[in-house]
Amino acid sequence: MTVLTDRYACEREAIDAGLRAAAARLPAPAARIAAYHFGWTDAAGAPTDASSGKALRPLLTLLAAKTVDGDWRRAVPAAVAVEMIHNFSLIHDDIIDRDGLRRHRPTAWKVYGVNDAILVGDALHALAFEIIAEAGGECARSGAGLLAQTVRALIEGQLADTRFEERESVPLDECVAMSEAKTASLMGCATALGALFGGGTPAQVEALRDFGCRLGLAFQHVDDLLGIWGDPAVTGKAVFSDLRNRKKSLPVTAALGSGHRDVAELARLYGGTGLLTESELTRAAELVESCGGRRASRRAAETLTAAAAGGLASQPLRTDAVEELTSLAASTVGRTN
Amino acid sequence: MTVLTDRYACEREAIDAGLRAAAARLPAPAARIAAYHFGWTDAAGAPTDASSGKALRPLLTLLAAKTVDGDWRRAVPAAVAVEMIHNFSLIHDDIIDRDGLRRHRPTAWKVYGVNDAILVGDALHALAFEIIAEAGGECARSGAGLLAQTVRALIEGQLADTRFEERESVPLDECVAMSEAKTASLMGCATALGALFGGGTPAQVEALRDFGCRLGLAFQHVDDLLGIWGDPAVTGKAVFSDLRNRKKSLPVTAALGSGHRDVAELARLYGGTGLLTESELTRAAELVESCGGRRASRRAAETLTAAAAGGLASQPLRTDAVEELTSLAASTVGRTN
Repeated sequence: MTVLTDRYACEREAIDAGLRAAAARLPAPAARIAAYHFGWTDAAGAPTDASSGKALRPLLTLLAAKTVDGDWRRAVPAAVAVEMIHNFSLIHDDIIDRDGLRRHRPTAWKVYGVNDAILVGDALHALAFEIIAEAGGECARSGAGLLAQTVRALIEGQLADTRFEERESVPLDECVAMSEAKTASLMGCATALGALFGGGTPAQVEALRDFGCRLGLAFQHVDDLLGIWGDPAVTGKAVFSDLRNRKKSLPVTAALGSGHRDVAELARLYGGTGLLTESELTRAAELVESCGGRRASRRAAETLTAAAAGGLASQPLRTDAVEELTSLAASTVGRTN
Repeated sequence: MTVLTDRYACEREAIDAGLRAAAARLPAPAARIAAYHFGWTDAAGAPTDASSGKALRPLLTLLAAKTVDGDWRRAVPAAVAVEMIHNFSLIHDDIIDRDGLRRHRPTAWKVYGVNDAILVGDALHALAFEIIAEAGGECARSGAGLLAQTVRALIEGQLADTRFEERESVPLDECVAMSEAKTASLMGCATALGALFGGGTPAQVEALRDFGCRLGLAFQHVDDLLGIWGDPAVTGKAVFSDLRNRKKSLPVTAALGSGHRDVAELARLYGGTGLLTESELTRAAELVESCGGRRASRRAAETLTAAAAGGLASQPLRTDAVEELTSLAASTVGRTN
């Protein structure tokens, strides 16, 4: 993502400054853990240059503000709030999923324990609403409502996801609905808040929300592809990690529902309970591919990205800003980490 | 609390209806767990008449709205939001403290597991902000800011509380600051939001907030006394429960800092790590009393309640409503459950 970082250096800097200023309001022990989680410090509290993530969502917020001809700087609080919500959900989801690694580093609960990680997540959650409230006026009212509905969707998605693990099979439409709730809703919130804070009309806000939701679902398809075929050195996850956890991701669900003759073998591997061997993992990945799961997710990602861009045509928006937003979308869907 | 329930039947009914309507917005699995937690259903989902708590905080909100000559019905959303925040923090704190019982019933995490309990807490947290946002105008803006600051204080208090357990001794002022953050802040938020939603001036909102904060600290003193000498049949906790957990509560901290000749023996019992026997627990309770801890907390509760009532005199408020509020305060501090 080096190219993006260069292209939006100014915006990235404003987001980083906003995040740091917001996190500084937290009670000291929570601020310390948040600084570690965001990659600003190591576990001992020393400054570090670890990656603090792609900051994709807040960048989407700022670019969305530009499309409605708004000053992107006015949308920085919204961008910060979105990133706070994203990170609150990451911290809690890592506890729930017992994930020990994030961005190539031990997760917050691994370093500081489950109790403190729960509380830091809660603190980031509240902080997001505090920042939105400070904007005042319609931004505060509509923004807080939008953010709260989004958190509800995130939770709905996470509840569905944890239940998928206990089910033998999940229909593709349920898997899509889960991804919409868990991933797409927050991206839709990111772009909608950008349009709102940029001074857009309700119709513009809605159009930008649709854009973010479609992009978010495309993003999840790509993320699920990377969870199987991604390079561990780039993704920071183990090779075949989603298969190892028998995760009912979008490509796997599409494969299992394809009716292909290899489905039975894939279902057998996924239906077991023991640890999958390396050769079984390689075989499972081959089966997801032969059953068309890889192609289905790749195509869905492309179709959704195109539909997202197309949907913006319904509104009067700044052309150069729309170009920025759609090229960020395209590079996100083509990403390798 | 039967007397209070009778006296404020109408208000209680409005709170209950508001809570149920709000909880109905949650994703189905979260709504089910919330209904259990609030005491509306049993673990199997069947309606029950289990106690859903005293609803003290939302009642404070509605009575505070009356003191500024406001229509208490307009403050129902604020009351519901406060109770949502209270219950989100209860659910997360029960996980953190590994508490297995609340209101005489197994806690949410005991019945539904830690993962779902984390998510339901998160959902109630977001719901509170959603309800406040819907009020619109200044109520939404100031209300959301107040609520977010309060959550930050709750978390600060809980972080301090968990760290107290690892420390050999805690000065009384730190213990008071922890109780202010963990308990008093939310009661202050409850009364402040009532005044805000009732249409009070900023000075009235501030005065009502001070009232709630003082009452909240008085409440914590009483709660800590009940944690040692409360009747298990009434409190729903084991006898001497706070001593059993070597909790550094207000009366214990006051006793340990008293300079009394019995302090050494109390410190020895509290300094150990093994399970305390029944006779050691009885002895510890005697020592807290002989070192003046019981008297100190009783007096602090009375002084704070009187100061809370006195502080309201600085503002023009409806006399009958202030009488209602102060008598609710007095009965809270004199409560046995």
